[in-house]
Amino acid sequence: MDYPKSILGLIDNFSSLPGIGKKTAERLALHIYSNMNKDDIEVFAKNLVNVKSNLHPCKVCGNLTEEELCPICMDETRDKSQVMVVENIKDLFVIEKLEVFHGIYHVLGGAIDFSNGIGVEDIDIPHLIERVKQGEIKELILACNATLEGETTARYIKSLLEDYDIKITRIAHGLPVGGDIAYADQTTVLKALEGRRNY
Amino acid sequence: MDYPKSILGLIDNFSSLPGIGKKTAERLALHIYSNMNKDDIEVFAKNLVNVKSNLHPCKVCGNLTEEELCPICMDETRDKSQVMVVENIKDLFVIEKLEVFHGIYHVLGGAIDFSNGIGVEDIDIPHLIERVKQGEIKELILACNATLEGETTARYIKSLLEDYDIKITRIAHGLPVGGDIAYADQTTVLKALEGRRNY
Repeated sequence: MDYPKSILGLIDNFSSLPGIGKKTAERLALHIYSNMNKDDIEVFAKNLVNVKSNLHPCKVCGNLTEEELCPICMDETRDKSQVMVVENIKDLFVIEKLEVFHGIYHVLGGAIDFSNGIGVEDIDIPHLIERVKQGEIKELILACNATLEGETTARYIKSLLEDYDIKITRIAHGLPVGGDIAYADQTTVLKALEGRRNY
Repeated sequence: MDYPKSILGLIDNFSSLPGIGKKTAERLALHIYSNMNKDDIEVFAKNLVNVKSNLHPCKVCGNLTEEELCPICMDETRDKSQVMVVENIKDLFVIEKLEVFHGIYHVLGGAIDFSNGIGVEDIDIPHLIERVKQGEIKELILACNATLEGETTARYIKSLLEDYDIKITRIAHGLPVGGDIAYADQTTVLKALEGRRNY
């Protein structure tokens, strides 16, 4: 006998998430059934749906927001002349938690990865170029990951912007080569940020 | 800046699950937002709620079911004289997947664990005794885990049933001492089952 179908569906949902295998998915689904009360489960279900319906990308930078612009872009105290270019929203929040960067962001939504069919048109570079053309940006900090894909993306962006009068920097290789920003400890990210160089 | 509140709620939900830390919860919540479509998320949310509303314990054995009795208790071909006593539903499904046991079950819903305040009244022993009293059961296979708690529970059940004319067996220590059935490989569980002895 297999699990009843009400729980099989939930096991499938959990095991479709990254890093969650079949055994963990079973454990989580049974935990929901055995250890959570009806109200908490309903809140969980509501939060799942809300994450998609309430949130969308900020019109300026691509960060998550419930409004038209994200709180960072709306914040008058942030330095709009300094833009940090990150691959993903998660990287943005890693940087934000350090509380040392007072500029604004540009979220690419990925990195160029030819071996997986992700080309220059699949990430949000056009909008970045447009932002640079508006003339307010003085420094672009390329905080793509220290991976082949991140490096390729950084170089491609640099090549597109050579004729513009802006400083382009790259966060230092404080990050271990091949490492993801999202998995680095805060000190490493901090060092990488401090040691950024002209690119 | 922290995450918007729509996603913070979901991060909290994920990190309340066993074995899921803050970083993993963030990764999962962002995966839901970035990589899942609205329909799939709604199915996930519906499955979460259904697991609690559609399922309940089988009136006889405590297994998960969508009906009054579970498919195992309703199955005419299963041997009702042989009852396997397991701590949790998960253990029941581990045994079921082996497809070697043709009796029925009794799910205790835990094990006696005095150090965590789980006493004899917190697990479903009274109902087991009642089932034995009905006289149909000839063998009780105690398949509690090979932990201190499982062993304590097995011995307690054995002590309560000494005056009844039934065979009480305990699955063999093929399980590594201190091991959970739910994490053992199938061969180990199979060996443990084959080597069960009078208790």
